[in-house]
Amino acid sequence: MSVTPVFALTPGEPAGIGPDLCLLLAQHAQPHPLVAIASRALLAERAKQLALSVELLDVSPAQWPQQPAPAGSLYVWDTPLQAPVIPGQLASANAAYVLETLTRAGQGCLDGHFAGMITAPVHKGVINDAGIAFSGHTEFLAELTGTAQVVMMLATRGLRVALVTTHLPLKDVAAAISSERLQRVARILHADLRDKFGIARPRILVCGLNPHAGEGGHLGREEIEVIEPTLEQLRSEGLELIGPLPADTLFTPKYLDQCDAVLAMYHDQGLPVLKYKGFGAAVNVTLGLPIIRTSVDHGTALDLAGSGKVDTGSLQVALETAYAMAASRARG
Amino acid sequence: MSVTPVFALTPGEPAGIGPDLCLLLAQHAQPHPLVAIASRALLAERAKQLALSVELLDVSPAQWPQQPAPAGSLYVWDTPLQAPVIPGQLASANAAYVLETLTRAGQGCLDGHFAGMITAPVHKGVINDAGIAFSGHTEFLAELTGTAQVVMMLATRGLRVALVTTHLPLKDVAAAISSERLQRVARILHADLRDKFGIARPRILVCGLNPHAGEGGHLGREEIEVIEPTLEQLRSEGLELIGPLPADTLFTPKYLDQCDAVLAMYHDQGLPVLKYKGFGAAVNVTLGLPIIRTSVDHGTALDLAGSGKVDTGSLQVALETAYAMAASRARG
Repeated sequence: MSVTPVFALTPGEPAGIGPDLCLLLAQHAQPHPLVAIASRALLAERAKQLALSVELLDVSPAQWPQQPAPAGSLYVWDTPLQAPVIPGQLASANAAYVLETLTRAGQGCLDGHFAGMITAPVHKGVINDAGIAFSGHTEFLAELTGTAQVVMMLATRGLRVALVTTHLPLKDVAAAISSERLQRVARILHADLRDKFGIARPRILVCGLNPHAGEGGHLGREEIEVIEPTLEQLRSEGLELIGPLPADTLFTPKYLDQCDAVLAMYHDQGLPVLKYKGFGAAVNVTLGLPIIRTSVDHGTALDLAGSGKVDTGSLQVALETAYAMAASRARG
Repeated sequence: MSVTPVFALTPGEPAGIGPDLCLLLAQHAQPHPLVAIASRALLAERAKQLALSVELLDVSPAQWPQQPAPAGSLYVWDTPLQAPVIPGQLASANAAYVLETLTRAGQGCLDGHFAGMITAPVHKGVINDAGIAFSGHTEFLAELTGTAQVVMMLATRGLRVALVTTHLPLKDVAAAISSERLQRVARILHADLRDKFGIARPRILVCGLNPHAGEGGHLGREEIEVIEPTLEQLRSEGLELIGPLPADTLFTPKYLDQCDAVLAMYHDQGLPVLKYKGFGAAVNVTLGLPIIRTSVDHGTALDLAGSGKVDTGSLQVALETAYAMAASRARG
C-alpha cells in the first residue's frame, strides 16, 4: 500500500447516475486522494450536461496522486468507452467498459496501489445482454480476488446488518441455511469487524430463521437443528454471538445498544429495517475479500441520469466507511 | 351496543405482567368505562405486591358501568382462578381461567355489551400443556365469532403493517401465498381500514415475496405468476394497491408518506420495521372479526411479573386504537 492511501471510485453504469454522483462529489475536497476510474470524455460531457465546473486531472499507474484533489477537481484514470453514452439509455456495447473499470480498481487494490475501492451502481441486465455472465459487483470481485466466500453487509450510522443468504428466491432460503454456510459467514463477519472495523471483541446478534425464532420448535425446527448447535460451536471458538433471536424484537434498543452487527438469515429479514433507519445514507460493504470495497446501496436510477436531481448521501457514507476501514486495517 | 361504549380488558396469563399492566393503567382515568375481566383476588394480591393502591369496583352483566372509573380504581368482572398464582410461575391449572376471560370478553362484544376488547398477553405453551389446543388469541376469537379468515395487523403511530401469512415456518411461506389467500386478506384489510379506521379510500402498499420483488423473475416467479395478476384483479374491484414493491425500499418515506397500510407477505418481512419504529408503543389489531379487538404487541414477560418494572406504552396504544376504531365504526 502506498504511504498516502489512494482510493479508487468506479462510477459504474455510464448511462446511470454514477457519473453525476462523482462530479457532484468533486465539488468538495476529499480527505484522501480519490481516483475515478472512468471515461474522461464521459465525465467531461456529463459535467457539461449538469452545468458543473469540474477540472479533470489525469492520473495513471505511472503517477498516482500524493494528495487530495482540491475542491472542484477530480482525479481520473481514463478508461475508454466502446460506444457513445446517452444518459438513461443502456448500451450493451459498453458492458466491457464497465467491467474494465472494476478490474482496474480491484486489481489496483490487490497490487497495493489503492487502499480500497468504492463503487457506484452497475446494471446487471445490460451486462448479461452483452453475453457476459455477471451476477453483481460482489461476485465479480470475489472471482477477481480468488475469494471463495464473501458476505454482504449493509451499514448506516448506528446499525450494521450482514446476511447469511442474499439474492435467493424466498422458497429456497430455508434449505440454504446450512451449518457450513452459517459458520463461514459468521467467521468472516467476526474477522472483518475485528480487522477492518477495529472492533476488538465484536458482539453479533443473530436472527432466527422462522418467526419468533421458531418458538421452541412450534414454528420451524431449523433453530433447534441447525442454528443453535452451530452458534454453540462458534462460541467455543471465541465468537461472541447472541441468539438466535426473533427478528421482530431484535431490532430494538435493548438488543441493538449492546451489539456491533446483526446477522440476518435472509435479505428481507434484515434490510428493511436497515434501509428504513438509514434511508439515503446506507452503504453496502463486501466482507471476506482481501481488499476493502464499499458501495452505494441504490441502483442506477437511469431516469435521473443527467438531471442533477441526485443525492450523494449514500456515496458519501460509502467513502467515509472505506476510509475508516482502511485506517483500521493500517492500524491493525 | 350500549349508549356509553364499554370496553373489555383481559389481563391474560395471570403469572405474567398482564395484571401489573392493568393495575398501573388504573392509576389514571380512562375516557370510557373499561372492565377488567379477571380474578378479583389476583388483582388485589398483585396490587399489594406492587404496593399500588387500586380500588377494585365489581361489575357484572347485571350492571355495566355508565361512566369511566375514577383514577385509582378499576372495574372488575370477577372471574375465579383455578389455582393460586405466583408471579413468574406458569400453572396449567389456570389455563381454563385464561380462556374463560377471553370467552367472556368476546361473547360480550358479540352480544353488544362491549364496544371492543383489549387483550394483554397469554402464554400459548401453558394452555397447550393443559391439554387444550390453542394457537393464539386471534385464532381463538376467530372460532368464537365464527370467522373464517382473520388478518393480523400491527400498528404504531404513523405505520400499519398487515400480514398475508403469520405464524408459519419460513420454508412454508412461499407455497402459502396463493391468489385466494392474497385476495381474502387484501379485501379484509381494505374493508376494515374503511369501516373500522374511517379511511374512505385506503391506499395499500404491497410487498413482493422475493428479494427485490423477484427482480423481473430472476429471484423468484411468485410476483409474476401469483401476486401481480391478483393485484390486477383486486384493482379492477376498486382496491387501491401499489406494488408488488421490494420490501427493503418500500419502508422509506417516498412510499410510506402516501399510504395507509403496508401488506407484507410474511411475519419477518413486515414486523421488524414496525417494531423498530414503534418500539414500546405498537399494537396488534385483528382485522376481519365482527368485533373490535386490539392487543399489546409484547409477551407475558414472566420474569418481570410483580416487579413493577413494566411499561404500559403498548397497552395504552392498544386502548387508544380500540377507542378510535369503535368511534369510527359508530360514525360509519
